[in-house]
Amino acid sequence: MCKGGEMPHARELLKEAPSNWGKWGADDEVGSLNYLTPDQVLAGKDCIRSGKSFTLAVQIGRPEGDPIWPGRPASQRYNIRDRGDFMAGAGKNYPGGLEDADDMIIMMLQGSTQYDALGHVWYDEQIWNGYSAETTAGGLKKASVCALAERGIAGRGVLIDMARHRGKKVLGRGETFTHKDVLEAAEAQGVEIRKRDILLIRTGWIGSFYYTPAEEFYKDFLEPGLTYSPELVQWFADMEIPNLCTDTIANEVTFEPETGVLLPLHLALMRNLGITLAEILLLDKLADDCAEDGQWDFLYTAGPLKVVQGTGAPVNPLVIK
Amino acid sequence: MCKGGEMPHARELLKEAPSNWGKWGADDEVGSLNYLTPDQVLAGKDCIRSGKSFTLAVQIGRPEGDPIWPGRPASQRYNIRDRGDFMAGAGKNYPGGLEDADDMIIMMLQGSTQYDALGHVWYDEQIWNGYSAETTAGGLKKASVCALAERGIAGRGVLIDMARHRGKKVLGRGETFTHKDVLEAAEAQGVEIRKRDILLIRTGWIGSFYYTPAEEFYKDFLEPGLTYSPELVQWFADMEIPNLCTDTIANEVTFEPETGVLLPLHLALMRNLGITLAEILLLDKLADDCAEDGQWDFLYTAGPLKVVQGTGAPVNPLVIK
Amino acid sequence: MCKGGEMPHARELLKEAPSNWGKWGADDEVGSLNYLTPDQVLAGKDCIRSGKSFTLAVQIGRPEGDPIWPGRPASQRYNIRDRGDFMAGAGKNYPGGLEDADDMIIMMLQGSTQYDALGHVWYDEQIWNGYSAETTAGGLKKASVCALAERGIAGRGVLIDMARHRGKKVLGRGETFTHKDVLEAAEAQGVEIRKRDILLIRTGWIGSFYYTPAEEFYKDFLEPGLTYSPELVQWFADMEIPNLCTDTIANEVTFEPETGVLLPLHLALMRNLGITLAEILLLDKLADDCAEDGQWDFLYTAGPLKVVQGTGAPVNPLVIK
Amino acid sequence: MCKGGEMPHARELLKEAPSNWGKWGADDEVGSLNYLTPDQVLAGKDCIRSGKSFTLAVQIGRPEGDPIWPGRPASQRYNIRDRGDFMAGAGKNYPGGLEDADDMIIMMLQGSTQYDALGHVWYDEQIWNGYSAETTAGGLKKASVCALAERGIAGRGVLIDMARHRGKKVLGRGETFTHKDVLEAAEAQGVEIRKRDILLIRTGWIGSFYYTPAEEFYKDFLEPGLTYSPELVQWFADMEIPNLCTDTIANEVTFEPETGVLLPLHLALMRNLGITLAEILLLDKLADDCAEDGQWDFLYTAGPLKVVQGTGAPVNPLVIK
Repeated sequence: MCKGGEMPHARELLKEAPSNWGKWGADDEVGSLNYLTPDQVLAGKDCIRSGKSFTLAVQIGRPEGDPIWPGRPASQRYNIRDRGDFMAGAGKNYPGGLEDADDMIIMMLQGSTQYDALGHVWYDEQIWNGYSAETTAGGLKKASVCALAERGIAGRGVLIDMARHRGKKVLGRGETFTHKDVLEAAEAQGVEIRKRDILLIRTGWIGSFYYTPAEEFYKDFLEPGLTYSPELVQWFADMEIPNLCTDTIANEVTFEPETGVLLPLHLALMRNLGITLAEILLLDKLADDCAEDGQWDFLYTAGPLKVVQGTGAPVNPLVIK
Repeated sequence: MCKGGEMPHARELLKEAPSNWGKWGADDEVGSLNYLTPDQVLAGKDCIRSGKSFTLAVQIGRPEGDPIWPGRPASQRYNIRDRGDFMAGAGKNYPGGLEDADDMIIMMLQGSTQYDALGHVWYDEQIWNGYSAETTAGGLKKASVCALAERGIAGRGVLIDMARHRGKKVLGRGETFTHKDVLEAAEAQGVEIRKRDILLIRTGWIGSFYYTPAEEFYKDFLEPGLTYSPELVQWFADMEIPNLCTDTIANEVTFEPETGVLLPLHLALMRNLGITLAEILLLDKLADDCAEDGQWDFLYTAGPLKVVQGTGAPVNPLVIK
Repeated sequence: MCKGGEMPHARELLKEAPSNWGKWGADDEVGSLNYLTPDQVLAGKDCIRSGKSFTLAVQIGRPEGDPIWPGRPASQRYNIRDRGDFMAGAGKNYPGGLEDADDMIIMMLQGSTQYDALGHVWYDEQIWNGYSAETTAGGLKKASVCALAERGIAGRGVLIDMARHRGKKVLGRGETFTHKDVLEAAEAQGVEIRKRDILLIRTGWIGSFYYTPAEEFYKDFLEPGLTYSPELVQWFADMEIPNLCTDTIANEVTFEPETGVLLPLHLALMRNLGITLAEILLLDKLADDCAEDGQWDFLYTAGPLKVVQGTGAPVNPLVIK
Repeated sequence: MCKGGEMPHARELLKEAPSNWGKWGADDEVGSLNYLTPDQVLAGKDCIRSGKSFTLAVQIGRPEGDPIWPGRPASQRYNIRDRGDFMAGAGKNYPGGLEDADDMIIMMLQGSTQYDALGHVWYDEQIWNGYSAETTAGGLKKASVCALAERGIAGRGVLIDMARHRGKKVLGRGETFTHKDVLEAAEAQGVEIRKRDILLIRTGWIGSFYYTPAEEFYKDFLEPGLTYSPELVQWFADMEIPNLCTDTIANEVTFEPETGVLLPLHLALMRNLGITLAEILLLDKLADDCAEDGQWDFLYTAGPLKVVQGTGAPVNPLVIK
């Protein structure tokens, strides 16, 4: 996938890239979420106009399958007990006649709409804030998703509908865009991206999973998305974006087209700047509504599960307009 | 646990109890969440003053254990890959030098802070809205938690701190209270419970899990909580409460003291009135803050996971004041 | 798949079929394994000549996938701890310097080479020996695989290589054969099938999984195998066969060609006669050896796992010639 | 637990201990199982007299719990489908009326009667045969249990009943014995331990799990068992013991009493000599029978599951006398 020459190591690619390590102290585990002060929450409040709300997670455990990074196993949900057990005399004999259904799940913590822990990816043996990557062994002792989840995410969110902006139902395989495209789309939508906004970008990709044969969706897996450039990284740093959310599995074009490097923005934005990534959101209904009423900003809220030492956690973000 | 006489069946106990079946159509699966119209969301917005936010979930997968209904197995989280694998030469060889940590979880869907599906409990072979309890077999085809999760929960929330009201750190084993006690506490707190409010009640119980030896916490398991009476059920119906949230595992006293019936409010409130129950919340920090600033109402938001056919789903509610 | 007319219900198809219910008492849970008396074990001993041994299970958890009944999820094995954890400082600090690797598995109990519990399949609401099928709810309270596993299986085994007999590497999709074909093959092989022998039949099917693309192996899933006839069932009854083992996932042609009925021999042989079924064996190496030395009988031993209330259990049979 | 002085590292303790590395080639993954030639199988055959057979595994998934190394989670078995589902209309609609029960399991691979892979434990960064311990990362690429399972175990087995020899129902916590004690017991039992015999030693410990309160069984966990000495290790080496099986969870006294070192025989016997260890066997019924008929030798067979890259695998050994 590299256009020629040798593939650079991330440390080369990013050697002059900005870093927020230490900015919030040596003990920080939530990174750019620190930008989400009460003022930002109030900025989100100010976007509430009609009281409409939207949930942004995909469903988990559809018999037909869920969108998931290739190689990760599908979620499995099983009933432990239900009416059938009571009919067959195997239910619990609860005092008073109550009957119940109960179930369990086996799932990858990054197997549905989820927040990445800041320590989820790294290079050069250090994760966010300079913690040793060895702290990830057996479970994230530092910068786990639990830290993000304890804090929660709330602030002004802005949706940029890149697919709609380009007049497409869904962006193509490997189709890229930059922060400048994002700004153009924002202008076309008539919405301002302000400092410290939570940025949601729609490509239509996850929505396409539900109408595309699985073999086709996963074939030579290559998502559309933002693509790396030093200017783009600097823009994210300058804008103090606390959280980037997209309707793709990995929030950026799978391989950076110039070099073939895998997911360099995970490294530049998450590892270096501490920007939290939320992935696999389904943004189609929200986008339709925003297109209809012309309001592209809102209060964005998200409570990822507080999974101790988790590398990520499922979440169902809720947006209020 | 029954004070004498024969234990009544729930159908006897509740034969004159109010019902909301059919109120929102024969196809309804979200019950009293229908009360949460945009007006209620705006009522929640009006409670946002300082921009402070709080997450209300318990942690999942602590090595020391999590609070869980007796008999349910503990959550298990396992790393699939981490820095150790890369050190030992077993990591993925991603182009560009990215390394990552990945993990999975095995958990009861009602094994942490969670929303009950409306079809989670029943009596007399019918769940919420009159659907046959047989629809629960193998997975909830009706009134699953996925319906609640697709909708999401947002509205004005009010916290009643029953423990603080009674001058206790935590209510005692099996200690009960009624809607009248709730109203008294509200008055003492200086907050009004309005129609269609999301009601959060703090007993201190889940918080006590973290400073009580496990054997003691679980011994002859008997939680404190609301206790059944026809008047209480009618009050919930009249107040059009969409959602009851508590810091206990089952939201009501485990056994109704007069009759010994297990969890009759699950039946009266959830099965019959369609009131959603959120359980195992940790309300201590929020309560401390409310006691300090005197503001006991807020915007309550919650996005349970969209588990297809789930009997319940984990959630990390987020509250904004 | 039915050749015409209405598909008969199993109860019609088998209404005059022989039954062993009650033969070993009302409490029996192991059925035809009762035929495996010490005499049969000694008959197996007499087949030991060279001391060569063979294991007959398939591997579990190959990254490339394992053969499994369509729709069942694949086995997942995960390391809990290994050298990588110790390198990264996350190992256990055992006194004296020992380090260790530990792992866990999630698997269908019938997802690899396995014994079916006698209560695994049924019709007309009764399982083996007349127990109510309701005893299967939540776990097999009767005729579970644990009963078979406590007893264990040992006796004279005979391998019939139907594929080799027909000059094929593997029988075709849906290709059938009868007990008469089995007897002809035995004669051609120069081996006698005696009363109470453990019967192993090779079709080459499971072996073909490893050299056939998965899409092709599973497409319109239709295994070759024995096919139902009243005479065949009577032959199994008369021969007092305790255990039928094959290298297919379900031990018989998937759909009975005359009627389209699914797996009628499971019902006629297992439910009615109590003959234990072992499935998904890999018989290729054993068959090659038998063809080479001309010895087709041996001591067959098998210890399925003692899974309490299990519908089946994995096993790795061991054969000694 | 150390009697004084500094605790030696295993590399000190075992620096002059015998090793079989390289003995069976640089590629060997089954170690002392190589001693189990066809001759040894025939020696086992010669012990078959009455045709009696015994299975030696513990049950898996008892509601009351199973014996397991402290900290490992219990096995969980769940029905996926059963008669209750069919009663409630949620069964499969199989052609012809067949109904079925199906289930799955989540278990530690060393959470029941099991064989340890030769690469399960190590010191000084090398496992059996000198393979790098880094080969264990993510799964055992070398010396996994799959290699043992492909080969299978069959040979002459001898049971030494140390508990009976000492006139006890069960050995005490931390009670030790040596190879000399084993030889004395053998002599008292009237059985000869020959070169290349599979050695089974009964302490009564696993049996005691079933009649001892769990808190007592696990309290300050300290099993009875063989204890390290250079002479004992040399004896195992000289006797070319291929396989040691006991009714304890870890086959030796938990901490070596002189030094406090954890499980040094795992290192001396398994890592260095390649002797396979089978653990958590239940030997009580077999021992009773041997005591009654005076026959303490037999054909021992075992087929651990062929778990790819597994650190261990469950097994249900079958013994024939």
